Amino acid sequence: MSISNVAIIGLGLLGSSIGHAVKELAPYIATTGYDRDPAVRAKAAELGIAGTICDTANDAVQEADLVILCVPVGAMEEAASKLSGHLRNGAIISDVGSSKKSVAEALARALPGHTIIPAHPVAGTEQSGPQAGFASLFTNRWCILTPPDDADKAAVAALSDFWTALGANVEIMDAEHHDLVLAVTSHIPHLIAYTIVGTASDLEEVTRSEVIKYSAGGFRDFTRIAASNPVMWRDVFLNNKGAVLEMLGRFTEDLTALQRAIRSGDGETLHELFSRTRAIRRAVIEEGQDDERPDFGREDHT
Amino acid sequence: MSISNVAIIGLGLLGSSIGHAVKELAPYIATTGYDRDPAVRAKAAELGIAGTICDTANDAVQEADLVILCVPVGAMEEAASKLSGHLRNGAIISDVGSSKKSVAEALARALPGHTIIPAHPVAGTEQSGPQAGFASLFTNRWCILTPPDDADKAAVAALSDFWTALGANVEIMDAEHHDLVLAVTSHIPHLIAYTIVGTASDLEEVTRSEVIKYSAGGFRDFTRIAASNPVMWRDVFLNNKGAVLEMLGRFTEDLTALQRAIRSGDGETLHELFSRTRAIRRAVIEEGQDDERPDFGREDHT
Repeated sequence: MSISNVAIIGLGLLGSSIGHAVKELAPYIATTGYDRDPAVRAKAAELGIAGTICDTANDAVQEADLVILCVPVGAMEEAASKLSGHLRNGAIISDVGSSKKSVAEALARALPGHTIIPAHPVAGTEQSGPQAGFASLFTNRWCILTPPDDADKAAVAALSDFWTALGANVEIMDAEHHDLVLAVTSHIPHLIAYTIVGTASDLEEVTRSEVIKYSAGGFRDFTRIAASNPVMWRDVFLNNKGAVLEMLGRFTEDLTALQRAIRSGDGETLHELFSRTRAIRRAVIEEGQDDERPDFGREDHT
Repeated sequence: MSISNVAIIGLGLLGSSIGHAVKELAPYIATTGYDRDPAVRAKAAELGIAGTICDTANDAVQEADLVILCVPVGAMEEAASKLSGHLRNGAIISDVGSSKKSVAEALARALPGHTIIPAHPVAGTEQSGPQAGFASLFTNRWCILTPPDDADKAAVAALSDFWTALGANVEIMDAEHHDLVLAVTSHIPHLIAYTIVGTASDLEEVTRSEVIKYSAGGFRDFTRIAASNPVMWRDVFLNNKGAVLEMLGRFTEDLTALQRAIRSGDGETLHELFSRTRAIRRAVIEEGQDDERPDFGREDHT
C-alpha cells in the first residue's frame, strides 16, 4: 500500500506546505486541494499549491487514498463530517493538528468505520495563509503519528512513508503522551509568549513605543511566537486543556521558586539553574533542531 | 570634547564587540583592553579586539578619556575600585550593564568625584566570551544613557557621539525608568525562558530526549535565550530586584487569567489576546528591531 493521491483540506501554512513539499519532493503523488474560503482557493490555484484546486471538499477527496485535514483542531469534526459518503473505500484520514486525543475522538465521531490515523508534523512558522507555505517546512522535523491501537499496520506504514518522503522523521506515539509532550515543547511556550506580549503592551508605566524600541533585549523573540495564528492556538488550548493545565502548574511552581530566590537574594539558586539550561540548547542544536548561529542567524544588523 | 582613547575593561561578548566596532566604524579612536582572566586576554590579543591588550587594568586606563566597564553588574564596584588613582583627569567612566540604578550607585561608591555616565546598549546574543563579539552588534540597536541629574553635558554628548559612531541610536533616560522598561523587555523574558527550559528538563513523564526532538514547536526559541551567560543574568536579577518582582507580578496575574480562561473553556478571551499580540510583532519589525523573515530567517531546513 502506498499513497498516490492526496487530498489537502485547508490551505493555510500547513496545507500549502504539504502541497509544495509533495510537488518538490514526491512529484509522483497527485494532489488536490480545498479550502472553504474562496479567496484562499483562488490564491492556492495561483500559487500552484496542488495539482487541482477543487471548489468542493467532495471533489477534492473523491480520488484520494490519503485525506489530510489541515484546519484548526476545533474545526476538524465539522470538516471531516462533510466528507462522509464521498470518500474512497479504504482511504486514510489524517490531519496535522497540534492536539491528538481530541482530534482522534472528533474524527472517529465524524467518520465512523474509516481508517483514521491522526498525525502532527512538529513544524511551522509564525505566518499564516496559503502564501506562507514552503516545500522544506518538514525537512528534518519530526512528524508524530498517533494511530489507534487497532490501526491497520499497512495504513500506518503508508502514512509514515508519505511523511518520510516529505523530509520528516516519523515517530509513533500514544495520543495522550503526545499531548503531554507537546504541552511542554509547544503549547506552554506559546501561552507564555502570548502572555508576556500582552502584559508588556498593557502597562501604564512603560509605553508601547518603549517596549518596541528596546525589544532586542529578549522580548522580540516572544513577539514572533505571539504572532502565530490566533484561531489555531485558541483551539489548541481548548482541546488540550488537561495537559496544558498540568504543565502550566509545573511551570508556575518553578517560576514561584525563582521569584523567591530573587526576593531573598539567593544568587546560588539562580546561577545553578542558569548554568544547567545551556546544556539543553547544545542538545537541541546537536539534534539538528535549531540553527546554531548566534541569534538564529538573524540578519537585522544591516 | 570628543573621545579619542577608549579603555575596555572586560573582554566578553560586549567588550569584544565594542573593540571590533571601534576598529571598523570609528578607527580614529584608539583602544586598550583588559580582562582579569589571562586566557581571555591572550584570546583577545590573538583576535585583535583592541589596539593594545594590557596585563593590568591600570595600564589599560592610563591614557583613556573613556573607560567602559564590560563586566557583570555584580562585579562593577570591585572592577571600578581598582581603577581609583589611575584614571586620567576628566575621564568618563561608563559601562554596558543591564541594570542601571544599582550600577550608578556602585560606580559612585567606587569612584567618588569622577565623571560617571552609566549606559546600556540593548544588544547581545546568547553567546559569551571574546570570540563571540562582532562589529555590527550595535548597529540599529538602542543604547540608553542614564546620566545623573548633575552630569556634565559635554561628557554626555561625547558618550552619545561615541555610541552613535558605533551604529547605535542613543536615548537618555532616568536610571529607575530604565530598570522598569528593561525588566519588561529583557529581564522577565529571560527569567521565563530559563524557567520553562528548567521545567521541561526536570519532568518525569516527558523525557529530555523528547523535549529536544520536538523543540521546533516553540520551545527551541526559549533554549536560545536560556543559553545566555549565567553569571551576567544572576547579577541582573539580584541588582534589579524591585522592578523584576513588580513586572513578574503583572505577568503572573495575566497568566493566571489565561489559565482560568483555558479551564473554563473561554475561547473568546484567548482569541482576543492572541489577535492583539500580532500588532506588536508588526511594530517591532517596522521599527527595524527584528528580522521580518519567517522564523527569523532560520536556515535549519537544510
